[in-house]
Amino acid sequence: MALAMDVTALTRFLHDAFPQVAEDFAIEEVRENAIRVRLLTAERHLRPGGTVSGPSMFALADVSVYLAILAMIGPRALAVTTNCSIDFMRKPAAGADMICDCRILKLGRVLAVGECLLFSEGVEAPVARASMTYSIPPGR
Amino acid sequence: MALAMDVTALTRFLHDAFPQVAEDFAIEEVRENAIRVRLLTAERHLRPGGTVSGPSMFALADVSVYLAILAMIGPRALAVTTNCSIDFMRKPAAGADMICDCRILKLGRVLAVGECLLFSEGVEAPVARASMTYSIPPGR
Amino acid sequence: MALAMDVTALTRFLHDAFPQVAEDFAIEEVRENAIRVRLLTAERHLRPGGTVSGPSMFALADVSVYLAILAMIGPRALAVTTNCSIDFMRKPAAGADMICDCRILKLGRVLAVGECLLFSEGVEAPVARASMTYSIPPGR
Amino acid sequence: MALAMDVTALTRFLHDAFPQVAEDFAIEEVRENAIRVRLLTAERHLRPGGTVSGPSMFALADVSVYLAILAMIGPRALAVTTNCSIDFMRKPAAGADMICDCRILKLGRVLAVGECLLFSEGVEAPVARASMTYSIPPGR
Repeated sequence: MALAMDVTALTRFLHDAFPQVAEDFAIEEVRENAIRVRLLTAERHLRPGGTVSGPSMFALADVSVYLAILAMIGPRALAVTTNCSIDFMRKPAAGADMICDCRILKLGRVLAVGECLLFSEGVEAPVARASMTYSIPPGR
Repeated sequence: MALAMDVTALTRFLHDAFPQVAEDFAIEEVRENAIRVRLLTAERHLRPGGTVSGPSMFALADVSVYLAILAMIGPRALAVTTNCSIDFMRKPAAGADMICDCRILKLGRVLAVGECLLFSEGVEAPVARASMTYSIPPGR
Repeated sequence: MALAMDVTALTRFLHDAFPQVAEDFAIEEVRENAIRVRLLTAERHLRPGGTVSGPSMFALADVSVYLAILAMIGPRALAVTTNCSIDFMRKPAAGADMICDCRILKLGRVLAVGECLLFSEGVEAPVARASMTYSIPPGR
Repeated sequence: MALAMDVTALTRFLHDAFPQVAEDFAIEEVRENAIRVRLLTAERHLRPGGTVSGPSMFALADVSVYLAILAMIGPRALAVTTNCSIDFMRKPAAGADMICDCRILKLGRVLAVGECLLFSEGVEAPVARASMTYSIPPGR
């Protein structure tokens, strides 16, 4: 299956549709049903001690699944998260960027499911895992 | 069981320990194993269309469970979220503050579990539900 | 909103559509968007030590949300679980029936969300909490 | 890290400690932080239409994470599930055995986290995904 959007198209879409958060993320690689997104860690993402906050990790996983879906079906700003489950497993490395490896497990007519592993850059053991369900609006 | 911290003590703790986010929240009420926290919705919490973002709702649920635990056991900055499950059920009302009603279902020696319902102020149907597990460090 | 099915109608439906498991459960009470279901604990639901197994608790929560939905929308055997999150918080009382208090938080056109608290009969502190999402087939 | 228990030792343990369910499962392969377990699908695991039930899938994922943990740390019957999140994504193939590919993402002093993909034998697309947290009792 060909990609509907590549890294350039997804990046442009993110800046147009979500200018509030687009500067937080860099889309590094997109493949069929898979994406890698980087959180460009800045002061606003940190907790005391310099580690990336839970909400920032949630945001990274959420945008990754969203973009991985759009890469397959094209720009659909109205897809919405309906469920998320996250396990926070290790303390992030202080100040490091965070990398999210995401793959789409199901891309149905109305629901899509993706799962993510989140890593501090340069550290092998994952910091968190997340699974997300998106509801895809009609009109596809 | 008496509360270890009341609204005033929790608010002061939040500002001392998490100055980055303390301005986002107002603790409205605390009771045994329960708390109500308000997200003081501002531009930075919104998505296009003016609705509160998923990460902001995650942050509200997360801080609510954390503060409800501290209300029972006292200031323990090192308690950490280990798991979160959220269902996003309805679109938030544009621009409205969000209210989180949280209760603690388990407060064990090493794990605590809380659940939350999130509402847009003035709207009866819940926007989201969340359950959170916290790991409590030794030394209690 | 009037109930589409009462305890008698739901019990008959359960026996007709799911004869394999109908004997495991007793529907105790049904109200708008809420139900109470009892697991008639038997040897096959137990783990060593006499406590109800995780899969049996999952089954109880799952059937409760399903029946609570059907009580509102009528017999729709094809509604399917799409997501479940469970927290197991305490050890069940040995050999006791288990009671599930369930309420529907959202009953949408295609998705419904319910949450459950599970108790060992006669014990106040909940054994488990669960949230479930059901996908409702078209044709409603 | 060497395995503390291999397929033979895990199979024996399962039959000794959980005779009620041991006949349901075949441990196919165990590696460091990973296991493959088969549900030997029988009438008692099925729903109308011949598809494996949700509770049976929960049980398969649960036992897989449990056995993968024991493979690393040795026989510890008292490890207990504290949280489970499952996404049911596709209908299982009627009557087919179900295969669970599980890996351990974290094996800490008190908590372990595993994730699973469940497949109907002979079908490539996964039927379900699950993540499980286990609490490991002291004395390791």
